Amino acid sequence: MFEEPFGEAWRLRYGSDAPDDSGVAARFVAHRSVREYSDRPLSEATVSGLVAAAQSAATSSNLQLWSVVSVQDPEQRTAIARLCADQDQVHKAPWFFCFMIDHNRLRRAAAMVGEECKGLDYNEFYTMAVIDASLAAERMVCAAEAMGIGICYIGALRNDPSGVASLLDLPAGVFGAFGLCLGYPSEDAKAEIKPRLPQSAVWFRERYDRAASFGDYDDRMKGFYESQGMKGDVNWSMRSGRRVDEHHLTGREVLKEFLEGRGFLKR
Amino acid sequence: MFEEPFGEAWRLRYGSDAPDDSGVAARFVAHRSVREYSDRPLSEATVSGLVAAAQSAATSSNLQLWSVVSVQDPEQRTAIARLCADQDQVHKAPWFFCFMIDHNRLRRAAAMVGEECKGLDYNEFYTMAVIDASLAAERMVCAAEAMGIGICYIGALRNDPSGVASLLDLPAGVFGAFGLCLGYPSEDAKAEIKPRLPQSAVWFRERYDRAASFGDYDDRMKGFYESQGMKGDVNWSMRSGRRVDEHHLTGREVLKEFLEGRGFLKR
Repeated sequence: MFEEPFGEAWRLRYGSDAPDDSGVAARFVAHRSVREYSDRPLSEATVSGLVAAAQSAATSSNLQLWSVVSVQDPEQRTAIARLCADQDQVHKAPWFFCFMIDHNRLRRAAAMVGEECKGLDYNEFYTMAVIDASLAAERMVCAAEAMGIGICYIGALRNDPSGVASLLDLPAGVFGAFGLCLGYPSEDAKAEIKPRLPQSAVWFRERYDRAASFGDYDDRMKGFYESQGMKGDVNWSMRSGRRVDEHHLTGREVLKEFLEGRGFLKR
Repeated sequence: MFEEPFGEAWRLRYGSDAPDDSGVAARFVAHRSVREYSDRPLSEATVSGLVAAAQSAATSSNLQLWSVVSVQDPEQRTAIARLCADQDQVHKAPWFFCFMIDHNRLRRAAAMVGEECKGLDYNEFYTMAVIDASLAAERMVCAAEAMGIGICYIGALRNDPSGVASLLDLPAGVFGAFGLCLGYPSEDAKAEIKPRLPQSAVWFRERYDRAASFGDYDDRMKGFYESQGMKGDVNWSMRSGRRVDEHHLTGREVLKEFLEGRGFLKR
């Protein structure tokens, strides 16, 4: 399932014709979040292969500032799903991974050889770890999708960072950055390719373009929302602006304080 | 080139035998940074297809909190390379992209419909944007590598964040997070698959393991460094600990102050 050719995936993203012969494989443009899974299991060998893909992503200076916890025990899975806004796909996904930024492992290794790693106090090493964890996750995702496995990222892992740290026994220097559901899609999974901003609004040449037009994106998203049964005369700008109101942070307003308390972002 | 079968790529990563039949494509495990490129050009259609792949990565709530600037003009390329520690591959890569986290575009769009986006002041929306930009980049990378294109991330884009902002005319709310070189590898490119930590040190089950062993990783990396002609009796723990000394931040110690001055991480 989900095997649109490149031109069709492009049209769904941009509402226009694809360039000829880009050479890019269609599946990289055909990503969508999959939230309903079949009973088909993912073998341990497959999951181990996917972890190898994740570990094969680039990592700054080979520091490997991330870790992952898979949560498969039913009781533990229920508990983590409750911390993630009780999202159905977290309860039901064949595999659920918590991707963490991890300064603890390097600090342990370095302490054994008498190095202090004082740099980890700086924003630079928070940012670097978030990049490391994200590159690893997305390489795992691309490898999974190439096998027909569906995925859904779970930002709600950040809704209750203290609860997650407690449940997963995370030491200082480790932070659950996002979750990832993995599983083969169910036969009737609803999962659409979502329109994106025109390339001219995202990809600039030589310098940033402060006046870049968003083209017809608000109209295209209005049509997409309607096709999904969402009511009201809402477009992307309105919906996104409201989503980023400070009253909709769903617990994540504590993140700065939480992270500083865990040893990140001191300087 | 660079077409090791899965088992061989696995052995280079972990020094052990791969599980049978993971089903994961070898190229996801065979990633390495490529710093030497052939003259074979990447067409505009290919690059546009790769940008489409990047835009097709998951993005929190479809907010698309990232942008990219390609730097191809020779004078501009020289200037950006100088800001990136004068790295040879930035000077010479057929394409060079600056990946940026971008709150500015959403703020502009929302302002047009009377929304304020006050949530963007919070750490949550810094972290979310770094994740968005990184997922986008790594999907571009996986799509490129599937075509035989080589890549190299450039963390040194953060060495002089003010210089980069000035050169690329970045407004408040936009930060150059990392660079990305793209090009077909030269015939004689030196690019090795680098050993990684054992899976048992990175992938935990149900809960974090504070006592996880690093196995023989220090020994394997000592061997790797020697094979690369690096002198001295150094292993991963020693090398990484020194790399994260606070005296080796190469300009990035200003990142917290810089980002706060650009409107990020206020709360």
